[in-house]
Amino acid sequence: MRIGDLSRRTGVSVASIKYYLREGLLPPGELTSPNQARYGEEHVRRLRLIRALVDVGGLSIAGTRDVLAAVDADDVALHHVLGATQKALLGTPVVADDDEAARAAKLLDDLVERRGWHVTETNPGRPAAIEILATSERLGTEVLTRLLDTYAEALEPLATAEVGAVVARGERSDVVESAVLGTVLGAGLFSALRTMAHESASSRLDAGPAAGPEEG
Amino acid sequence: MRIGDLSRRTGVSVASIKYYLREGLLPPGELTSPNQARYGEEHVRRLRLIRALVDVGGLSIAGTRDVLAAVDADDVALHHVLGATQKALLGTPVVADDDEAARAAKLLDDLVERRGWHVTETNPGRPAAIEILATSERLGTEVLTRLLDTYAEALEPLATAEVGAVVARGERSDVVESAVLGTVLGAGLFSALRTMAHESASSRLDAGPAAGPEEG
Repeated sequence: MRIGDLSRRTGVSVASIKYYLREGLLPPGELTSPNQARYGEEHVRRLRLIRALVDVGGLSIAGTRDVLAAVDADDVALHHVLGATQKALLGTPVVADDDEAARAAKLLDDLVERRGWHVTETNPGRPAAIEILATSERLGTEVLTRLLDTYAEALEPLATAEVGAVVARGERSDVVESAVLGTVLGAGLFSALRTMAHESASSRLDAGPAAGPEEG
Repeated sequence: MRIGDLSRRTGVSVASIKYYLREGLLPPGELTSPNQARYGEEHVRRLRLIRALVDVGGLSIAGTRDVLAAVDADDVALHHVLGATQKALLGTPVVADDDEAARAAKLLDDLVERRGWHVTETNPGRPAAIEILATSERLGTEVLTRLLDTYAEALEPLATAEVGAVVARGERSDVVESAVLGTVLGAGLFSALRTMAHESASSRLDAGPAAGPEEG
């Protein structure tokens, strides 16, 4: 199909498609004349993957490029592809070099040991979690520290179900793509549902001193 | 304290402080001369709140302004402040008007009914969840649909613990601030921990056909 058809099939504008081609996110089509190229189903699929990463995951072009490179490298293990995806989702948090960060790292390492988690030093979640816990202590809020084990307890069955849902689904390219999509879309869906669950929980609990006049 | 001291206390640059003053996020200091103002502890606290919203929550300046307006309005109920925070976190997703979106809305409404959640029509999580489920169907991935109840099950105790941790903590301004911080920092911390839990779960499960050569 021509670029216009590719645009209609995917709902992505021709200008955006040309941008992704220039940035190397989308592989070039097959040239049929010096000014015209033909695109196939693999372009439709790749474009949808790019849009999910950018629109739902909020990934930058550079982050999207990193994830796609890992997806395309045949010799990269699945968990490295997922690592690249999670790194692109979380960004690269800078951990401050202060007492709060040191205490936060200790809290986190204790949690990992207590729960028996297997987490390597390079996991991108680690610096992100440390910096957030440290920020929370600098702000004088101890809410998060108290929630750590509740979070871990909720996460264990969740992570097992999520990882289990995407592995062992046939060909490597399918597994990798669905793992990347599951990671990005799953994170977005969970946040959205959490907002709904909060409203539901708060409609039962919100009768404290902070309730406004309409709550009576 | 002067603006330079406020900058040192909070680690926020003088240029950023001036920007927040201009944008109305930070209330003006008390003028001590035509060119000089004095700032107090309330400015330290407000600056830290702004930075948590911007740095950890990734909120825009407009989103931050909306949240702070809700925090400052004395007559607004806690769950409305949380609603404004969650709306700023999730953005304003546009739901497509197609069959996939209609099926996604049905899936979601069934889930809410099945779980007995109390969720109003205006909850910002609802359109976000619908659009992600519809995107997932357009991409041919059914992983998310299968995970819906797992997510809901993980969320119920989590949301109750989170909401319970921030309500009933004394003065309204404290409750509201800690609720906003808990929402923003809690979402960030949970995502970071999830990355760690995924690695842990995947190191146990990742022995399928997608494993690269180093997995043997």
